[in-house]
Parts: sequence; C-alpha cells; structure tokens
Amino acid sequence: MLAPADVIRLEGDAVVLLDQTRLPGERIDRRCSSVPELVLAIQELAIRGAPAIGIAAAMGMAQAARNSGATTMTALRAELADARARLAGSRPTAVNLGWALERCDEVIAGTEEPDELRRSLAALARRIHEDEVGRCLSMGRHGAELLSPGARVLTHCNAGALATGGYGSALGVVRAAHARDPGLHVWVDETRPLLQGARLTAWELAEDGIPHTLIADVAAGQLFARGLVDAVVFGADRIAHNGDAANKIGSYTLSVLARAHGVPCYVVAPSSTIDHAIASGAGIPIEERAADEVAHLGGTLLAPAGTTVSNPAFDVTPAANITAIVTEAGVHRAPFEQSLPVSAA
Amino acid sequence: MLAPADVIRLEGDAVVLLDQTRLPGERIDRRCSSVPELVLAIQELAIRGAPAIGIAAAMGMAQAARNSGATTMTALRAELADARARLAGSRPTAVNLGWALERCDEVIAGTEEPDELRRSLAALARRIHEDEVGRCLSMGRHGAELLSPGARVLTHCNAGALATGGYGSALGVVRAAHARDPGLHVWVDETRPLLQGARLTAWELAEDGIPHTLIADVAAGQLFARGLVDAVVFGADRIAHNGDAANKIGSYTLSVLARAHGVPCYVVAPSSTIDHAIASGAGIPIEERAADEVAHLGGTLLAPAGTTVSNPAFDVTPAANITAIVTEAGVHRAPFEQSLPVSAA
Repeated sequence: MLAPADVIRLEGDAVVLLDQTRLPGERIDRRCSSVPELVLAIQELAIRGAPAIGIAAAMGMAQAARNSGATTMTALRAELADARARLAGSRPTAVNLGWALERCDEVIAGTEEPDELRRSLAALARRIHEDEVGRCLSMGRHGAELLSPGARVLTHCNAGALATGGYGSALGVVRAAHARDPGLHVWVDETRPLLQGARLTAWELAEDGIPHTLIADVAAGQLFARGLVDAVVFGADRIAHNGDAANKIGSYTLSVLARAHGVPCYVVAPSSTIDHAIASGAGIPIEERAADEVAHLGGTLLAPAGTTVSNPAFDVTPAANITAIVTEAGVHRAPFEQSLPVSAA
Repeated sequence: MLAPADVIRLEGDAVVLLDQTRLPGERIDRRCSSVPELVLAIQELAIRGAPAIGIAAAMGMAQAARNSGATTMTALRAELADARARLAGSRPTAVNLGWALERCDEVIAGTEEPDELRRSLAALARRIHEDEVGRCLSMGRHGAELLSPGARVLTHCNAGALATGGYGSALGVVRAAHARDPGLHVWVDETRPLLQGARLTAWELAEDGIPHTLIADVAAGQLFARGLVDAVVFGADRIAHNGDAANKIGSYTLSVLARAHGVPCYVVAPSSTIDHAIASGAGIPIEERAADEVAHLGGTLLAPAGTTVSNPAFDVTPAANITAIVTEAGVHRAPFEQSLPVSAA
C-alpha cells in the first residue's frame, strides 16, 4: 500500500508529490519548489482528489513561508497572502482547498514571529495530512460495516490513497472491507476523460491485491441490469449542507442506476469535504475543463479537429439518490441537514 | 453527405469499403478481395453497424461467387456454403448478418446455373444495399415527426450513414429533422471504448453541418439533470419480438436516465434488425470483445499491464424503457409484440 509520504510530502524547500499524470506507466516524484509550480501540478492533476488538494495547499503555504526571505511579519504575511490567492484559485470545486487555507489563515493570524510562523505552518500541513489519513482509517471502519460478505462494489474515479494523501475514502472502505472479506470484488469504472479509474484505482487495487475488473464507464448499466452490483461507493469533492454531493463527472449517472435497481449508493468523504455554507448542490461551482481532454489522448486525435466539446469535471448527486454519507464521524443518513457533522477543525 | 457507394460497394473482384477504423484522421478505402479479408474487416470494425454488416455479408457472398472458378452448381454451392459459414461467424449480435445471408440462401437454392447465380447474388447485394438506404429515408421521415422544434437530441455510438450503408437510422432521423429545423442540436456521446461517437458520428454531423457537441459518455447524466436533453435516439443491432433492443454498450444506461427524467427514448432500426424468433432480450447473444480495446488506445497503455477487463460490446434496453421503435414502416409503440412489423423480404 502507498505510504502517505509516497503520495505527498514536505521535503527540504519543496512539496514533493507522486505525479499522478504519469501513472500507471511511470512512478515519478514531482518536486514543486514554488507556489506557481505547485498550482500547475494541481491544475494538471499531478495531485488531485479533494483531500489531497487540501493537503497540497497547506504544504504550499508552508513552503511559501519557508522559502520567503521576509524578516518581518508584515512582509511575510504579504507574501503568504499572494501564495494563498494563487492556491485558492487553482481549482474551483473541491472545498477542502479553501478549508485547508482557512486553517492556515488562523495560524498566520495567531503567530507574531516569522520563524515561528514558518515552523507552525509546516507543522499544520503535516498535521492536516496525518489527520486526513486518520479520517480515512475511520471512514474505512464505518463504511466496511455497510458491505455484505462477497460484495461486488462499483466505484468511480479514484477516491484512494492518491486522492486523500493515504489509504483513501471510498477505497479506504474497500480496503477495510477486503481486509476482513477476501471475497470482495471491485468493479472499476475507467472514468473518462482522464481515466483516473483505469490508471489510478486499478493500480492501487493491484498493488494491494484486491480483486477487481476494469470496465468502460458505459458498461456499468448492464452490470446493474444483470444483478452484478451490490453497492456503489464513491468519494466527493464538495458536499452541500443538504447532502447533495459533487463528485467526478459520471457519479450522478451511477446514482440514478443504483436507485433504479435498488442498489445502495454510498458517498465517502471526510468532514473537511462538507460545506455547510452551501445549502444545496445548485450552489456548488462546477469546473469546466479543456476540450482537448476529451478530443485527444496521448498523441491520438479522437474526434474531428475543431469539434465542439463540453467537458465538465464534476456533477452533483442529489441527496435523494444517496443511501448514506460516510465520514470519519460515522454513517449519516437523510435528513442530511441534521445528520452531517460540522467540518473538522 | 456520404453517398451509399462511398460507404461500401462491389467493385471488380472486391468489396470496397471506407475503413471506419481510420476515421476521422484518414479517409481510406479498404479492398477486400476474399471472404477472409472481409471477415477480418468486419471483426476489426472497418465496417460496422448492423445494416452495414448485412450489406457487407451479401456483397461478400456475391464476390465469393464471382471469384470462384467453379463450373458446376454443386462445386459453387459448396464454396458458397464455406463463405456463408465464415461470414455468419464473424460477429454474433447483429441479426441483419443472418438476415442477409438467408436472402442469399434463397437465391442460391432457386438458381440452377453458375453464372446466373453470380449475377443474381450481385444483384441481390446491390438491392439489399439500396433497400437499406431506402428504409433509412423512410425512418428519417417517420422519426423526424417525433422531435419538437429546437430539440436537443442525445445519440450514442454511430447509427449513421456509415452504419447502414447510407443516410443512417438514428442519424437519418437527425438528418431529416435538421433539414426542416436548423435549430436542432445533437449531443454526441463519445462511446467508449472504440469511440464511434467521437470518431464517426461527430465526423458525419460535421460533414453535413448539423450543430453538435461532443461529450464523454459520463457527462450524459448531468445533461438530463439540467434539463438539456429533449430526446434520446439510438439504433439497434437486434430487436427481440417483445421490443427489447440490443445496441452499443451504454445505450441501456441512457434509457434508464431518459426514463428517470421523463425524456422519450427512441430506437431507430430497419425491420431487418427485428428478430421475431427471439422472444426477449435475454435470448440475444452479446459479443465480448478484447480487453485491449479498453486497456489501450493507440500506443498508450491506459491501465496497469495485466488488468482484468470486462468489455461487452452491447447491452439490452428493455422494451419498458423504449418510448417508440421507428422502422421504415412507421412509429411503433408498446405492446411491441403486436406493433412491430415482420422483417422486410
């Protein structure tokens, strides 16, 4: 299994992360020695997954402080405000990014000496990382209770160690369930356009020896029709107060299929993903990504040159389609307005 | 618009077809001068789509007769029986293949002179081709009546001129509707794993100047959720007596989404696609294709080497999810056992 430090770590003057755009072909560390380099790594999805983006942002703030030559708090705070703005604007949908930056704001506001602030931000980033992995272990324990022996679990995108800094949210549940039930089987949606299921989830499951079968996203429907799916488990990038959950594009379709076939649909995410400030999914900003992600793959042109493409990165699964939301605090059911925990501090 | 002879034709000693595996990058004719070459072209999907496969099979029989040196009916019939067996085994799901070969059987049984049989099989193949295109024009007229002005139509895979030998079934409806309503808009599912939507449907629509937007298959769900789909229109590879329709993998999911959102789902196919000998979709054989179609694209490895893949080429949309089936005979609604026409002769 990937150790948390294999996914992302503070190392010297850099944030070092496993470059997820190169998997599964190559396992290469990417060193980001400046905030713009880290922002680019986030935008290119070298590091992705809502909790992992939050960890990366906190580490980015710590490195910005460390690499700054500022000798006064005023100068250092000004530099950190610039770093914060760049990181906050890197991607719009994951709320963990803003959540982690708010934790940094509190430390910045509450510290009065530059070197102490440098130490405190590094400690905060490491603590956020440790806490997210700890939350995954808790989610795994809670979520595994929901799966029957021999369950055939369908997952989408990658909500694994790579997405959370270690262990995983939805894949954490899979890991915990597999540890006590080797008969578990995972259906892995390839997750077009960027194939995080095929490239990352299949790779994580193979590393851990968890039985799985890869399918094109279009093949999920007939698995339900044939009675071959016992549960749908995926992560979330932002969960609104009412339980509506934004996750990788295609998650909504799985929730509709699950509901139509009487199969439970579980969303697994840490409390840092819950945004109580947003009443419903309608308020969640959805990132539109480049047409080329759909129209090209490697050097191959997949559609006529100039074809108009719509490429939203996320969709919203309404609370009504969600059987339960699993966080580190437990298993939460409707009405989610009352059952969801407040975000971790 | 592609002329029927651009898609497939008898030419000298060969069946010449536009190689659909090379589109949209290259527009290249592929000459098949023997039955094994044609079978390979069918298996590699250089020619695909149920009606086009039927046309190809009839042309293959005509060429087998023409290229045979047999001087007696006994010898010629033996060679044609071999050709028939090879063609019949090329792909399992499309019923039009068997339907076209049965038309050939009738001609072979009813002819007593080798050269007359050669002429008759060539004439039959050309007539089947002409008839399929004529059926498409009729389907277009009937189906266009189902679409409201400004309709936003979602289609899957390619049920266009390339799939039917000219004009198209589902895309025939789109063409006929667009001819009288330039405000029509088409959502094109890319259709993994072989991307017939991105490569072929987007190309056909661009050639005809019909407005369209390409999406990853996973993006269809949120289009329904946002109220941006007015109708789903796709083809079929085999329709059972009760109206259950096998079509490209992913069609079933669209039918579930359509039903969940109160959007009509139309299946468009010629009567040669209806198999009254099969009571329901459970009896339709579903082709399982190679894992590499999912795990590789061009030279790019999309998943860890050795990943187990499930890659069914088709799924079955149950009659209950189909608002109407459009054939050349008209618009047919449930109960389909009574409304579907018998196959064309």
